[in-house]
Amino acid sequence: MTERRRPKVIGVMGASSCDAQVFHTAYQIGRLIARRGAILLCGGLGGVMEAAAKGAKHEGGLTIGILPGSSERESPPNSFIDVAIFTGMSDARNAINVRSSDVVIALWGGYGTLSEIALALKIGKPVVLLHSWTFEISPRPPSARIIIAQTPEEAVEQAFALIE
Amino acid sequence: MTERRRPKVIGVMGASSCDAQVFHTAYQIGRLIARRGAILLCGGLGGVMEAAAKGAKHEGGLTIGILPGSSERESPPNSFIDVAIFTGMSDARNAINVRSSDVVIALWGGYGTLSEIALALKIGKPVVLLHSWTFEISPRPPSARIIIAQTPEEAVEQAFALIE
Amino acid sequence: MTERRRPKVIGVMGASSCDAQVFHTAYQIGRLIARRGAILLCGGLGGVMEAAAKGAKHEGGLTIGILPGSSERESPPNSFIDVAIFTGMSDARNAINVRSSDVVIALWGGYGTLSEIALALKIGKPVVLLHSWTFEISPRPPSARIIIAQTPEEAVEQAFALIE
Amino acid sequence: MTERRRPKVIGVMGASSCDAQVFHTAYQIGRLIARRGAILLCGGLGGVMEAAAKGAKHEGGLTIGILPGSSERESPPNSFIDVAIFTGMSDARNAINVRSSDVVIALWGGYGTLSEIALALKIGKPVVLLHSWTFEISPRPPSARIIIAQTPEEAVEQAFALIE
Repeated sequence: MTERRRPKVIGVMGASSCDAQVFHTAYQIGRLIARRGAILLCGGLGGVMEAAAKGAKHEGGLTIGILPGSSERESPPNSFIDVAIFTGMSDARNAINVRSSDVVIALWGGYGTLSEIALALKIGKPVVLLHSWTFEISPRPPSARIIIAQTPEEAVEQAFALIE
Repeated sequence: MTERRRPKVIGVMGASSCDAQVFHTAYQIGRLIARRGAILLCGGLGGVMEAAAKGAKHEGGLTIGILPGSSERESPPNSFIDVAIFTGMSDARNAINVRSSDVVIALWGGYGTLSEIALALKIGKPVVLLHSWTFEISPRPPSARIIIAQTPEEAVEQAFALIE
Repeated sequence: MTERRRPKVIGVMGASSCDAQVFHTAYQIGRLIARRGAILLCGGLGGVMEAAAKGAKHEGGLTIGILPGSSERESPPNSFIDVAIFTGMSDARNAINVRSSDVVIALWGGYGTLSEIALALKIGKPVVLLHSWTFEISPRPPSARIIIAQTPEEAVEQAFALIE
Repeated sequence: MTERRRPKVIGVMGASSCDAQVFHTAYQIGRLIARRGAILLCGGLGGVMEAAAKGAKHEGGLTIGILPGSSERESPPNSFIDVAIFTGMSDARNAINVRSSDVVIALWGGYGTLSEIALALKIGKPVVLLHSWTFEISPRPPSARIIIAQTPEEAVEQAFALIE
């Protein structure tokens, strides 16, 4: 018997509130991910997370939200989340977000997003950055796989290229 | 705009290895859960978790596995898991299992299952026990919702009754 | 160079509120642990945790509290905690309590305590029960090290015997 | 009755391996922290964490290590840790490191350290950077308290100034 293949999981990380342009970009990313048959994983809240989930649902994709709270009441998922995982771990759930994604796309973002980028790189998970953080240190740790994209199309294209 | 309704999530907890009879019972539970349109959530490993996921997939249901390891390599999901969440938290993930389930069915089980029963009751989540742990203390903590079922059919029936 | 020996860590688990008799018993346990030079670890809250920490401080011992909240404001440690670890993980911190203890003493307790007993046994950590939960399943998982004590003196004596 | 004051906790974050110069700087930071009566908290491993703990012990301070593994065997604490907390959460323990520190000093560091800086800033915890990461985004999230220090003396001085 051959092993059953699970779909790829693309994590989209970004701030829980954002302006209309970032929202639209995240929505586009969500659409493109679902169109290629991957599962969208995000933090389950508003802003970039909501926009990406909304885009994925528009294309009939499956959406996973890894929530910070212990319950629906503590951290209500946005309306476009199919499966809500209530971690009750607050920001420590950021580590679960990146572990459960095959590749991470970070779009703009606050310090939570920066932590997710760093946690992903720490465990060797590839990261695609779109209008997001830059970070430098000397000497830089080796071997991180970081791609800088300029458009949502390029971000999703590169994300799939990194895991195929 | 009305809120989008997510499907109910039924958690099935049990040991990662089991005999053929327990496996068959867990399989039946998984089938019945999926047939009623709920998502099956489990710990993603073998034994009761695999059997329940296999049953749910037989009926075309959606299955979630909350894994103890940080990656596929550290804790390979069983072949019937659609969405694998890699927590990297070992047994501390048991708290996430019960937080993310609307109701928990415990089938037989080891000490990990006992911890899940206890964590569920701690946060007021209802629990259905089938051939599982008994536990007593005097005085007993108030207000836990515990149902003792005798068959897989009764277990699933009671689980849905508790959350509808 | 020889390895530096850290002191033994004894975890005392019990409910966050309790009557005067249980409080006094926990206080005695704390005193006896500190008198033997071990560190007292607990959940950092009130009830049994506060009583045990108070007893340990009365003997000049060191006390560690593993708190459920993310900050002092979310979960204020009791007044007898020297080192407060803010996990921000709610009940999932119960796994950390037992992992960080060399042996666990459970005194009476609610469902949180039952989860700690189970998590300890799951990872092979020895447990001493004093007026606490009884739990049965058939067949019972093998090889758990469980001692039933009748007095605080016996509980502490047995706890040290299990790890020396 | 007045509340008992716990000592301040200073977190020192940095890579688990480092060159002799960084080691010496971390050692100095540890000495200065203990000399001022604060508890040193770190990730409990080698490199910067070991050096800072060694410095603190040289001055008779108390040292806490928040370890990634579930047990001594999985992640042995360095020889200068007084209290070892075994989280079993791998890098997700980085969130606990910053929650349990009143202020964070980051010295050089890899991606794990970058995640700790970001997690600290996310929850409004002040951060002192010494030869560590720079990070930029436009627009930058508001109100983070970040100090850039040039020497171990200045780093510790600023850390205490931020919390007094």
